[in-house]
Amino acid sequence: MSAYLHRVIYYETDQMGIVHHSNYIRWFEEARDLYVRERGVDYGQIEAHGILMPVTDLRCEYKSAAKYWDLAAVTVRVLSFNGVRLRYGYEVRNAETGALIVTGETGHCFIDAKSRKPLNLKKYMPEYGELLSRMVGEEDGESK
Amino acid sequence: MSAYLHRVIYYETDQMGIVHHSNYIRWFEEARDLYVRERGVDYGQIEAHGILMPVTDLRCEYKSAAKYWDLAAVTVRVLSFNGVRLRYGYEVRNAETGALIVTGETGHCFIDAKSRKPLNLKKYMPEYGELLSRMVGEEDGESK
Amino acid sequence: MSAYLHRVIYYETDQMGIVHHSNYIRWFEEARDLYVRERGVDYGQIEAHGILMPVTDLRCEYKSAAKYWDLAAVTVRVLSFNGVRLRYGYEVRNAETGALIVTGETGHCFIDAKSRKPLNLKKYMPEYGELLSRMVGEEDGESK
Amino acid sequence: MSAYLHRVIYYETDQMGIVHHSNYIRWFEEARDLYVRERGVDYGQIEAHGILMPVTDLRCEYKSAAKYWDLAAVTVRVLSFNGVRLRYGYEVRNAETGALIVTGETGHCFIDAKSRKPLNLKKYMPEYGELLSRMVGEEDGESK
Repeated sequence: MSAYLHRVIYYETDQMGIVHHSNYIRWFEEARDLYVRERGVDYGQIEAHGILMPVTDLRCEYKSAAKYWDLAAVTVRVLSFNGVRLRYGYEVRNAETGALIVTGETGHCFIDAKSRKPLNLKKYMPEYGELLSRMVGEEDGESK
Repeated sequence: MSAYLHRVIYYETDQMGIVHHSNYIRWFEEARDLYVRERGVDYGQIEAHGILMPVTDLRCEYKSAAKYWDLAAVTVRVLSFNGVRLRYGYEVRNAETGALIVTGETGHCFIDAKSRKPLNLKKYMPEYGELLSRMVGEEDGESK
Repeated sequence: MSAYLHRVIYYETDQMGIVHHSNYIRWFEEARDLYVRERGVDYGQIEAHGILMPVTDLRCEYKSAAKYWDLAAVTVRVLSFNGVRLRYGYEVRNAETGALIVTGETGHCFIDAKSRKPLNLKKYMPEYGELLSRMVGEEDGESK
Repeated sequence: MSAYLHRVIYYETDQMGIVHHSNYIRWFEEARDLYVRERGVDYGQIEAHGILMPVTDLRCEYKSAAKYWDLAAVTVRVLSFNGVRLRYGYEVRNAETGALIVTGETGHCFIDAKSRKPLNLKKYMPEYGELLSRMVGEEDGESK
């Protein structure tokens, strides 16, 4: 299985000798960003259109712990998208052993960078709206 | 209302001009640590006893955004504690306006630092077990 | 001696059991920001004028290590300021034992947020230029 | 030229719209770790021998700024190594344009994890001592 790969860097560990739990949230961001770019959606372009995509909620379940220099594989799926709201699911596994480390979800909305009001991406960037719609429930949901 | 206060530092912002969503998870940690210490539970002492308290899950809902140099007030509550598992709830507000920024919860378990197996804190550190039990549902749930 | 106080949070530690060396750089930022604000210079106002103050260089010497929940005292001085360039010096000590932890310096310049070209703060914000000039070599160089 | 590649993630930016200056320090760590591993020195093994390698000093000069999703190329060199002290030099460039972003150096020493006293790596891990000695002044100083 191919997935976004993240090597655990020393600064991500804490004195428990494992990755600090807040760092996985950042891996989710790395992984979803890469995932949609590989499918034609460049978040930099979204911002260039004056649209932001803040996180509205997240949840994370820690099943085991990644350690220094572990190679983690992050799989991403688009769970839902209606133009205004977008929802991702994640699974982080040890790339060598396959052991499940973390599962999670993040919710996002699209807003106007100036007014900070919600907007429908399908209206302002229809091509991206189309691409994101196609990703919902994609069979393998994998990024490379 | 008194609560743990956190001043937003520049490095916590991202190019959206708001606090990056992963940072609130760290404020939760600051706040719960201070909250229990003020009630006699020193996490450093728990680790010194060879006991760790990893996070098992978290959830976070983002209601509005904190900005650079905002003063945030984090309120903590102990939602449940049975010796093996401990659960906190959080509310982050703008300390000046009272506006709600983030709500969240984190779950934790107690494990043996060597075997990494779950253990009952009430058995190994009964005094701390007692103190944590008393915090459950504490009326105001405030830290200073 | 009064100085900016920073409590070491768990996420700042690494698996060496000490504060990760990159975090002190962030404490410098917290401390200098507070230091100048207490003397009337609000960095938020500088940005609101379309002026940015990027870091041009830094150096850091690590004398000993801060640990989880240590209380660190960061002292700041303005070493030099000519309107275009500003230089700070820092000393981080254990607030309880007085032991020296880190010393450092950061250099900054003022630039136009749009053109990214250097500018003279004394020209665009003369009051702030005056306040910063006065801080150079200030006897005690302390923030509270 | 091959070098360690780092993709700029959103959380590394700040509200100036550039990578926060503290993050480059972390890229240095990623790059030096990979660099020595590719030459046979596994820092995890050093720690497993009860030896730590804290940072003793660092300096960093910021020439230009990396931005969101830029691909940065970090080149590493071992500047000096005498068994007790090790010194690295770094150069960060935009991988696409070649523009210089940051240069830096970090100094490290080897200490006993328990006594925290300096020790000579050549004595305790002669093979690693030999490998590191060979890296000093290596012609290309490149990691892949």
